[in-house]
Amino acid sequence: MAGRTQGSKCLLKVDYNNLTAQAVGSAGLAPEELNDLKASASEALNDVLSRHKKGDLPFMDLPLDEATARSCQRLADRSRRKCRDVVVLGIGGSALGTAAIYTAVKPLNYHRLPEENRHWPRLSVADNIDPEGFQAVLENMDLEKTCFNVISKSGATAETMSQFMIIFDLLRRKLGPEEIVNHLVVTTDPKNGVLRKIVKAHNLVSFEVPPGVGGRFSVLTAVGLVPLAMAGVNIKELLAGALSAREDGLKSFSSNIAALIAGLNWYMTTKKGRASLVLMPYADSLAKVADWFGQLWNESLGKARKLDGQPANSGQTAIKAVGATDQHSQLQLYMEGPSDKTVMFLGTEKFRKKQPIPDIFSEYPELAYLGGRNLGELLEFERKGTARALAENGRPNLTLTMPEIRARTIGYLIQTLELATVISGSLYGIDPLDQPGVELGKKFTYGLMGRPGFDDFLDRYNKGNSANRKFILP
Amino acid sequence: MAGRTQGSKCLLKVDYNNLTAQAVGSAGLAPEELNDLKASASEALNDVLSRHKKGDLPFMDLPLDEATARSCQRLADRSRRKCRDVVVLGIGGSALGTAAIYTAVKPLNYHRLPEENRHWPRLSVADNIDPEGFQAVLENMDLEKTCFNVISKSGATAETMSQFMIIFDLLRRKLGPEEIVNHLVVTTDPKNGVLRKIVKAHNLVSFEVPPGVGGRFSVLTAVGLVPLAMAGVNIKELLAGALSAREDGLKSFSSNIAALIAGLNWYMTTKKGRASLVLMPYADSLAKVADWFGQLWNESLGKARKLDGQPANSGQTAIKAVGATDQHSQLQLYMEGPSDKTVMFLGTEKFRKKQPIPDIFSEYPELAYLGGRNLGELLEFERKGTARALAENGRPNLTLTMPEIRARTIGYLIQTLELATVISGSLYGIDPLDQPGVELGKKFTYGLMGRPGFDDFLDRYNKGNSANRKFILP
Repeated sequence: MAGRTQGSKCLLKVDYNNLTAQAVGSAGLAPEELNDLKASASEALNDVLSRHKKGDLPFMDLPLDEATARSCQRLADRSRRKCRDVVVLGIGGSALGTAAIYTAVKPLNYHRLPEENRHWPRLSVADNIDPEGFQAVLENMDLEKTCFNVISKSGATAETMSQFMIIFDLLRRKLGPEEIVNHLVVTTDPKNGVLRKIVKAHNLVSFEVPPGVGGRFSVLTAVGLVPLAMAGVNIKELLAGALSAREDGLKSFSSNIAALIAGLNWYMTTKKGRASLVLMPYADSLAKVADWFGQLWNESLGKARKLDGQPANSGQTAIKAVGATDQHSQLQLYMEGPSDKTVMFLGTEKFRKKQPIPDIFSEYPELAYLGGRNLGELLEFERKGTARALAENGRPNLTLTMPEIRARTIGYLIQTLELATVISGSLYGIDPLDQPGVELGKKFTYGLMGRPGFDDFLDRYNKGNSANRKFILP
Repeated sequence: MAGRTQGSKCLLKVDYNNLTAQAVGSAGLAPEELNDLKASASEALNDVLSRHKKGDLPFMDLPLDEATARSCQRLADRSRRKCRDVVVLGIGGSALGTAAIYTAVKPLNYHRLPEENRHWPRLSVADNIDPEGFQAVLENMDLEKTCFNVISKSGATAETMSQFMIIFDLLRRKLGPEEIVNHLVVTTDPKNGVLRKIVKAHNLVSFEVPPGVGGRFSVLTAVGLVPLAMAGVNIKELLAGALSAREDGLKSFSSNIAALIAGLNWYMTTKKGRASLVLMPYADSLAKVADWFGQLWNESLGKARKLDGQPANSGQTAIKAVGATDQHSQLQLYMEGPSDKTVMFLGTEKFRKKQPIPDIFSEYPELAYLGGRNLGELLEFERKGTARALAENGRPNLTLTMPEIRARTIGYLIQTLELATVISGSLYGIDPLDQPGVELGKKFTYGLMGRPGFDDFLDRYNKGNSANRKFILP
């Protein structure tokens, strides 16, 4: 039963009243501006759809890949009994989507449940190389009951490969070389790269990152599906939601949420001076969706050049904020600081748990109104009150609402925002799928690490950094 | 032995070579611009120091308050044996500083240690009202061995007071009314507010938020010291570091790190178009320092009006990024997107743990350079490589370096950045200590919650939100 709706409920709603001039004055969109942006976004949508037809955008068809989902699920069912912890070794696009979906879908107390109440392994994502942080991830695990999933498309990611070398060595020393294969799953390029070579040399279990799907668009490939399935996330539901989004994404502009989100934000950025886009979920379980979106949006749209070679320096800075917490941290700036942001709220119509506020202290008027309500209501009203306050202050905002937070709605959201990103790329006239800007820093690091072939970069580093003591204090 | 240096080591170093025109071209500071900013920042520093002399800025003298520290430590020593978990009920300034210092100073694996190896209670900060998230904080605690510290200066913070009502009721029901006093510590205004009334009515243990110290400048008051001491953080060392920073903060511009940080960022924002300041720590333990700084900087400097009533819409958007992780997420935007950011790296010369990378897979040149090194080196080289790459791309950045991450260096950092914020306020000509912009949203929330006296805001909300269906999809 694909499709955006389940019964009468839609999986994602966009309310952009507070982006209109009627709501926020000159910072908002006048009717003719709305028409302009619709025309541009509609054109960009058509561009994307025709590239999709030519097979250029394989991420759009990932929800159709039932075979991969089945083999991920088979692995998960097989490893479930012998495995208490799953640890992803990955960074960036190999980590953020998995963490976002896991945090959104699993109960927030899952890691705190007693072992007998956890029917699937716990998932940890080791996405940094801080020595103490990496050790902390490993320290609460029983190696014999832990499965590692190392993920690197290129097989050359320095951070991930360092982690991999540490773990490979640890498994060999502690459990014996013959046990490595039972504790390690590799996800990498089908043919190329050193990780694929190691898979062959050591006969390791492996999955493929499909060609043409970059890290930040890969969570619905084996990159995300392997660890999510192993951790008991219902990947069938996740993909069903993504499939609904795929179908809706192929529709024309007037009923295409992804194109609307792209068009609104592109226009607000390029014509109305909103350099930043604050994504502000009002649910703890959605906090990491904002991290995932931050990579998707920023790495895709921040580009030096357009496709035609002209200078671009494009992009809109996605910023994470979490409600209600960051009302007490960021809202002052959003209300009164430079008028350079759009706030995109992300809410849910229903929380998975209720938490009533007891009817006590009714003798104090400052507290009496809270008694007898519940935390979910308060959180929802804070989101609504904040959106209205921003609007009255002339600060544009929009709200995405899910009916509830579960695998299907998250699948829909993920696929929709990925499509919105690619449509945005078309609006900016840039390539949303590459990331040429991250290479130079890697080369300096290689030089500093003494990697053969990068001596030039070490020299260049040293020359550039021959610091003037004048500019160091104390 | 106060003072910035311990032996030959300083507690914080600022390297701003990569902010100069020499390093980054026209985006950077030419010598005459540096002179300009030094003159302005020096004047702002003098303004702040004269206000401090008049007693206007009590946060600057918090490191001198030994009496509060002693009483916090006494409580901590007393509660240590009976208490396994400390839970802060607080939000914004009542939560962020405590979380930042705790995460920075305690071993990252502390919560994962077996109980017999934890010699102080674990600390959790419940800083949101997500019903599932709040329950998850409570679910792994043994109520009999848990102490709650409710923190609200006004006593009226809706989020914190809701949590407080839930906990008060829970303690009364589960442990009995006479036990409440053994499980609850209140930190609030010395005289005013409903929380102070409740303290008196129920004879609760309480601490004071000193007059004139706002939430985001309060971590070195009882607001932070109570929970940090209870969790075994060495608050004496923390305050000693802050005291060193206080002394250095009273020095003239040429040896005043706080004034330098303020001046550089103010100039880059107002004259060189850097609307955002990315704070990018390269250590997992410093990640929450960036969250704390995000409130401090954004809520203090984002103001609609100057002190003289003229429009300001001032501020620079502090953004959190964590290295090396966010090189794989945000760096592309920082390198190639709009040239509107300054990146401020935060590094340490030494990590608390080593994590060697084993010398394996030397047959693969892509991996051979990693073998025999360690994760701390790699992380440091990534920070340096990234700073250099940004500079070569004409993207200004600066680096703060600590010799190591412990209570004393963190105390120094916290106090220095607070002073830098107030000096920045003087440069912008705004009041860095208020937050008038957050009130309107609260009033709408009160209206929606049915709080008596806020019907007007409910009406105004409904009128403003009489949404046009045209602007909702689907």
